[in-house]
Amino acid sequence: MEKIRRNERMSAMMKILADHPNQIFTLSHFCDLFGAAKSTMSEDIDILRDVCKTFGLGELETVTGAAGGVRYRARIAREDAFAYVNGLCENLSGTERLLPGGFLYYSDVLSSPEITHRMGGILATEYFDAEPDFVLTMETKGIPVALTTAHALGVPLVIARHNSRVYEGSAVNINYVSGSSGNIQTMSLARRSVREGQRALIVDDFLKGGGTAKGMVDLMREFSVEVIGMAFVMETATPTRKRVQNAKSLMTLEITGGDEPEAIVRPAAWLSDGKA
Amino acid sequence: MEKIRRNERMSAMMKILADHPNQIFTLSHFCDLFGAAKSTMSEDIDILRDVCKTFGLGELETVTGAAGGVRYRARIAREDAFAYVNGLCENLSGTERLLPGGFLYYSDVLSSPEITHRMGGILATEYFDAEPDFVLTMETKGIPVALTTAHALGVPLVIARHNSRVYEGSAVNINYVSGSSGNIQTMSLARRSVREGQRALIVDDFLKGGGTAKGMVDLMREFSVEVIGMAFVMETATPTRKRVQNAKSLMTLEITGGDEPEAIVRPAAWLSDGKA
Repeated sequence: MEKIRRNERMSAMMKILADHPNQIFTLSHFCDLFGAAKSTMSEDIDILRDVCKTFGLGELETVTGAAGGVRYRARIAREDAFAYVNGLCENLSGTERLLPGGFLYYSDVLSSPEITHRMGGILATEYFDAEPDFVLTMETKGIPVALTTAHALGVPLVIARHNSRVYEGSAVNINYVSGSSGNIQTMSLARRSVREGQRALIVDDFLKGGGTAKGMVDLMREFSVEVIGMAFVMETATPTRKRVQNAKSLMTLEITGGDEPEAIVRPAAWLSDGKA
Repeated sequence: MEKIRRNERMSAMMKILADHPNQIFTLSHFCDLFGAAKSTMSEDIDILRDVCKTFGLGELETVTGAAGGVRYRARIAREDAFAYVNGLCENLSGTERLLPGGFLYYSDVLSSPEITHRMGGILATEYFDAEPDFVLTMETKGIPVALTTAHALGVPLVIARHNSRVYEGSAVNINYVSGSSGNIQTMSLARRSVREGQRALIVDDFLKGGGTAKGMVDLMREFSVEVIGMAFVMETATPTRKRVQNAKSLMTLEITGGDEPEAIVRPAAWLSDGKA
């Protein structure tokens, strides 16, 4: 191979790191790949770190110690997150997306690769430090945003189902009361999908009463897994008292009463709370 | 802002392009962002194109004409795709993942952000030229790989449901015969999720008889949408005759009979067919 120039090395390294978010690469890995000295690679990384900062492209972190190296985190600054979510809220507010019965249509937002990619980055930013081992969601609508959050965190996604399926092997089932319908429902998770002592981040699309979220917490207890946080795309303004605490939602939804109801969607308060 | 050096410009441009796969950025966009001349940006792009090629990081394409510019495609070379899928097959073959009744456990693979990211790139590579307007999947297990494929193609993901939900508004329902169970089932899609005359790529996790896939094709006909291709993570070796044609699966599954059944998972034939 010809000698690789700094601009080539740095571009390739940026791409490789960003393709494997939150995963540590040793300096030696890149030294071997590019045929460069450690001191040269360190300089490259210093410059790349500044590039990420200057252009708001996430964060490059150097990790010291025996398992040390460099990793990329798709960290999104609080003000950028607020601006992005605020744009989404404008798109979702009003009367156009309101369905009969006071439901809001936003399935297209929940399954958009581009939007869920950004939302996943924003949610992951809040939980890098808590170091979850996996992301848990409940099928179906939260799967895309749970996947992108898990991707940004560099951890697996685990999906709980409404029924135990024969093709998942032995499973743990729990019953829970759905906050919205008041009905008793079943939630099921394959035994082999998580291990005792792991740490879970719950991610889902919608938080109303919190019954489903509470169900997921109970399910994790059955597996002796600690829930380190809960994140949602949207939560309803009422009831204000949810069955789970410390949940972080990106947006709050309020639907005005009267003859001509309207959806009022706002960025969650924590997004304008200053620094993460 | 200080003068931005080539290595900084190129690294940032690589990241921005890769964050928006298959989307065309004008040269002017980058000229403005970096305060550089068009000729300089063209040189940067030429070098970046070679970097992508040298390190197998996808493809940078220059698009000429009025709507021209540069775009990144996560194109994966056929031999790299084969090697990757072959590795997955080794992981899935054997007796460990076999469940009673001849089912294979691979939910963890289907929901892994890292694996579905790669599978999505491999599948998208096959359909860049067909230019689909969106990816269609049927809930639930195919959602992650359908999302990553849609992301690589730079198009929305549309999810058909088992039942029309009140929160999706008016919907088109069709009945179809499930190939595996022989039961009549319902598939539903919100009216507003697609437009007449669009082109759909169907992506799902599993192809056995092809009943569900055929249902999705029928559903698209109701919307006057053309199906330009069908891609699956896994298809069963039998029945050899499916109810849909021209489907591309990544892997084929065969479960041996007898007292000690075993799963034999192989990369699909087209993956070793030489060039894409």
